[in-house]
Amino acid sequence: MAETSRDAKRARTAQLILEAAREEFATRGFDGATIRGIAAAAAVDPSLVIQHYGSKAALFAVAVQLPSNNADVAADHLLEVLAVRLGELPPETRALVRSMLTVPEAEASMRQFLDERVENLAGSFDGDDAKLQALLAVSGILGLTITQHFLKLRAFDDVSSESLLEAAGGWLAPAKGDT
Amino acid sequence: MAETSRDAKRARTAQLILEAAREEFATRGFDGATIRGIAAAAAVDPSLVIQHYGSKAALFAVAVQLPSNNADVAADHLLEVLAVRLGELPPETRALVRSMLTVPEAEASMRQFLDERVENLAGSFDGDDAKLQALLAVSGILGLTITQHFLKLRAFDDVSSESLLEAAGGWLAPAKGDT
Repeated sequence: MAETSRDAKRARTAQLILEAAREEFATRGFDGATIRGIAAAAAVDPSLVIQHYGSKAALFAVAVQLPSNNADVAADHLLEVLAVRLGELPPETRALVRSMLTVPEAEASMRQFLDERVENLAGSFDGDDAKLQALLAVSGILGLTITQHFLKLRAFDDVSSESLLEAAGGWLAPAKGDT
Repeated sequence: MAETSRDAKRARTAQLILEAAREEFATRGFDGATIRGIAAAAAVDPSLVIQHYGSKAALFAVAVQLPSNNADVAADHLLEVLAVRLGELPPETRALVRSMLTVPEAEASMRQFLDERVENLAGSFDGDDAKLQALLAVSGILGLTITQHFLKLRAFDDVSSESLLEAAGGWLAPAKGDT
């Protein structure tokens, strides 16, 4: 019984640290985030962060894991994860996108995630140019995610999220829609 | 005469440092690049880098300046700068894109550059949704630049650069082309 409650406490601490790490990586990027800052945000001692995750790099690898590929993951899910439809990106996605151009682990994780999405999508499209259309859709949605949630371009003030979602949806259905 | 030749030497040194800095920032990002490494690549003493540019941040700001907006800068130029048509990105663009998600100066510079492109493009499109189409085109091309030149997605091995260029060109001419 004492064993179990100690285990439960350990798991809770690990989870708290992970959530704090996602926020810190999402806001400050990999280089800007520190073990000390993550520990402070989780209200634990820095030594506990190391005890649970080993190093900042190892914690980062866990923090930015995205849902892996499977049959249920439809094109729609891409919109979900990349948040064209959401006001706010989930912190693990923000952490991963923010770091993908400067941290090799994040770059590799993002490459694998997007390679899988392109394969999936291409399989669902008709026509000779299925792979090209899938590549364009995935690249376009990544671009929108960056211009909307990171660079915050001015033009987003002037377009409705419905029209954006419709347009991105058009990229995801090149065979069907030409509205 | 001696004055002039000293000035010319100074200018040449400044130019050498700037080119080395662009390469270093492009490859290592802002945080990874160092004054020492830039000086070594330019084959000058580190103190000269400081003498010419003041600080790493100031040098970065000069290194990532993109051509600013003017009437001649057509939609085509966006493809040029973002290199959908090129095998290789110019180092100042690589440096800027690589750092735009982690370095505030790069983020601001990229935001301004893309805001201007969206305005320009929207002005050249017909229809009620000109701004939406411009935003989609600029975001899409940024996304392609990242998936092609930074993440290097696998699918690029299977599509021709002609078909990519044509597709990106289609984003830039929504009113005309539906090929």
